[in-house]
Amino acid sequence: MSNLQLTEDGKLKHFLTVEGLSQNLLAEILDTAESFVGGAGQKIKKVPLLRGKTIVNLFFENSTRTRTTFELAANRLSADVLSMSIATSSTAKGESLLDTIRNLEAMFVDMFVVRHNISGSAHFIAQHSAPHISVINAGDGQHAHPTQAMLDVFTIRQMKKDFAKLRVAIIGDILHSRVARSQIQALNILGVAEVRVIAPKTLLPAHVETLGVGVSHNLHEGLQDIDVIIMLRLQKERMTTALLPSEAEYFKCFGLTESKLKIAKPDAIVMHPGPINRGVEIDSKVADGVQSVILRQVSNGIAVRMAIMSMAMQPLGAA
Amino acid sequence: MSNLQLTEDGKLKHFLTVEGLSQNLLAEILDTAESFVGGAGQKIKKVPLLRGKTIVNLFFENSTRTRTTFELAANRLSADVLSMSIATSSTAKGESLLDTIRNLEAMFVDMFVVRHNISGSAHFIAQHSAPHISVINAGDGQHAHPTQAMLDVFTIRQMKKDFAKLRVAIIGDILHSRVARSQIQALNILGVAEVRVIAPKTLLPAHVETLGVGVSHNLHEGLQDIDVIIMLRLQKERMTTALLPSEAEYFKCFGLTESKLKIAKPDAIVMHPGPINRGVEIDSKVADGVQSVILRQVSNGIAVRMAIMSMAMQPLGAA
Amino acid sequence: MSNLQLTEDGKLKHFLTVEGLSQNLLAEILDTAESFVGGAGQKIKKVPLLRGKTIVNLFFENSTRTRTTFELAANRLSADVLSMSIATSSTAKGESLLDTIRNLEAMFVDMFVVRHNISGSAHFIAQHSAPHISVINAGDGQHAHPTQAMLDVFTIRQMKKDFAKLRVAIIGDILHSRVARSQIQALNILGVAEVRVIAPKTLLPAHVETLGVGVSHNLHEGLQDIDVIIMLRLQKERMTTALLPSEAEYFKCFGLTESKLKIAKPDAIVMHPGPINRGVEIDSKVADGVQSVILRQVSNGIAVRMAIMSMAMQPLGAA
Repeated sequence: MSNLQLTEDGKLKHFLTVEGLSQNLLAEILDTAESFVGGAGQKIKKVPLLRGKTIVNLFFENSTRTRTTFELAANRLSADVLSMSIATSSTAKGESLLDTIRNLEAMFVDMFVVRHNISGSAHFIAQHSAPHISVINAGDGQHAHPTQAMLDVFTIRQMKKDFAKLRVAIIGDILHSRVARSQIQALNILGVAEVRVIAPKTLLPAHVETLGVGVSHNLHEGLQDIDVIIMLRLQKERMTTALLPSEAEYFKCFGLTESKLKIAKPDAIVMHPGPINRGVEIDSKVADGVQSVILRQVSNGIAVRMAIMSMAMQPLGAA
Repeated sequence: MSNLQLTEDGKLKHFLTVEGLSQNLLAEILDTAESFVGGAGQKIKKVPLLRGKTIVNLFFENSTRTRTTFELAANRLSADVLSMSIATSSTAKGESLLDTIRNLEAMFVDMFVVRHNISGSAHFIAQHSAPHISVINAGDGQHAHPTQAMLDVFTIRQMKKDFAKLRVAIIGDILHSRVARSQIQALNILGVAEVRVIAPKTLLPAHVETLGVGVSHNLHEGLQDIDVIIMLRLQKERMTTALLPSEAEYFKCFGLTESKLKIAKPDAIVMHPGPINRGVEIDSKVADGVQSVILRQVSNGIAVRMAIMSMAMQPLGAA
Repeated sequence: MSNLQLTEDGKLKHFLTVEGLSQNLLAEILDTAESFVGGAGQKIKKVPLLRGKTIVNLFFENSTRTRTTFELAANRLSADVLSMSIATSSTAKGESLLDTIRNLEAMFVDMFVVRHNISGSAHFIAQHSAPHISVINAGDGQHAHPTQAMLDVFTIRQMKKDFAKLRVAIIGDILHSRVARSQIQALNILGVAEVRVIAPKTLLPAHVETLGVGVSHNLHEGLQDIDVIIMLRLQKERMTTALLPSEAEYFKCFGLTESKLKIAKPDAIVMHPGPINRGVEIDSKVADGVQSVILRQVSNGIAVRMAIMSMAMQPLGAA
């Protein structure tokens, strides 16, 4: 997997998963993103790094928010962007997905930003793309959402500096979350002291410990000594599949309230990949409170995606 | 309301309603728009006034025409534009509308152009936006459509010069029309001699005189001495709600035909915000006739929206 | 028809059909396209030829692929592009189509790229547009798809040089194909030795010979001596209308396989306007084989459309 993402001399070519990447490469992404951020709350300047390049947003799964941040990041890099929403049904067979890719390649595009509800789709497209194409995974099935994980660790570094001392809790539906999988990988590569997942047993994968995490089934207990709290969005459809009793019950046990937040360290930060379900996994007072960095994550998403897109295009520029 | 729209030193910050704005400010908008218009039928040049700015078209209500003119106006100002069509259902609760706004703000956008089927939506968004954001109302419920009113008075000034001597008739469904409400305000602020509404009683608001208009229920009578005729679009759905007998009946009483047009002054101009219902509120011969300035209104829409957008961004540029 | 497309001094003004154009003009289009192509597989550079111009993609019929190539071609020419997907239902009456056109004209756009399911729509729009507007036909009903035909003959010229010696076979549903109609015209104008259509009788128009083609109902027989093989896409809906027995039966008789390809000349090239139905009209081994130039056609589509769009704008530039 990791080899596919890198050029022979170890530069970023595709960005498909955090898994297998080196601490140095992740740090390089974070440093590059840093260079795009003006100052606190300041606007990101438009730079000509990808002028004349064409980026195609290939969204087989609907996501206004993620598509928008990728589009804005591409604008800031001066690239041309083409957004395509593709009904999965029309490309159900791998063969016709390949034909779609081959045709777009033939139109001289330079990068695919791919979101797909099937795990492995971005890898598949990267494996079968022409040598000059870069592929960015914008979320594939329940597998990975690596740009989200990178903007999360960027935000953590902004707020907390030294990863080595941090205890990070990820709370909620770990089982179905591509975000959680990528976060766990990134945090471990960057060398945090502990990643702890907190969830009911029905929302944890089997043998979750093998991912390199501590486990708790109890929010009161799990939040002890925590520096960074990452809440996950609870997909409402889980309710109907007997994995969970009810929204109210879930909120009571695993929803983050002001009183529960006090169990963590006093300077703990609260994160969420959005969009938030107020009153389901998080209380509004916490989401909008002083410890929340949820909107900062959104802002950082632009700079981090600019960094990843421009780095992935770099080997070409040099060639 | 008016204070919200202006900076402390009286400059335009948001453009939400014509109500409460000064004659000077309206004249400044018209003069700025004038500077963008080349000559009769000539193309508007692209200017770099908003280069590097990001404008988001937030359309909670569908409108290809209005969205298109805002997009073209933004292009001419060299801004980046992001068009989002948002199903109202997904943001039914004010809380999630706010979350949408907060997220877009965090992505460093500079302006929201808002169309919404609920009156007051643009005000709500302006009230809750970050200080650096400008909000333009592109139509909210039955409340206001101020950019339409400004392009209408711009067109009137082009054709008729002196507002003080003009008698303007607005004909049709005043009751449900945000366009009419904004037109009446703008015309009164600019000091026309008379605004006269002509409509059946079922299509007039109660106490309509308090808006500062004369009233007639008879087209023959009402068109006497009129310099400017503004026809309103008749929403077909009004038919089913017992407010009106039938399309044919409406056309007979309130439809503008060549013979009825002769009742007005010989040099009267005919306006319509579009899209027109030929044979319902207006006869094709009048819509396409020499006294019609309907397409000129569309052209002027680009220049007037450029003026409003660039003026609203100005306080930032200076800061 | 042809006069409508040309200015008084014979320059391209609209591009509606290949029919009636001179060999010289087609050659000029091909030469202009040549100038945009870098080298084999090389990317097309962005040029400022249409900077400040606004192109509207008016798609009354859905087509992601064609819309995308026009949008990319417009980007490469530095034009601003506005893509509008218009449900035909809302403009069912010719009158309201005209109103749509009039309104867009009034917004100072420079070019319409039109796709419509009714034959003659692009002509109709060209006839009724303002003098400064250029109209490009991106496919109208079963009438014409002239930019597709031009990219096809461009690809043939790249691969085969001299048209005068070529025998070209077009295979499949000639009856319903606007692509075939335009290809036959272009090939005959460019003076190929023979155009031969190969199809079952139910998929050929009556008196097809009058189009200037040879006819065969048998693939084995028809492929003899052929230099260029153009496969047409089989619209699946034809199956249900009793024109064809079954997909398997069609593939057996008219599908292009490796063994049938051997009947043609050894250096014959295989073309297809896409999207291909693998296993219906063409075997995957042929579609992806060394004689296939299908993806080259897609690449050439950008350069050829750039050529046509920039030439159609030229008379204006000079005026």
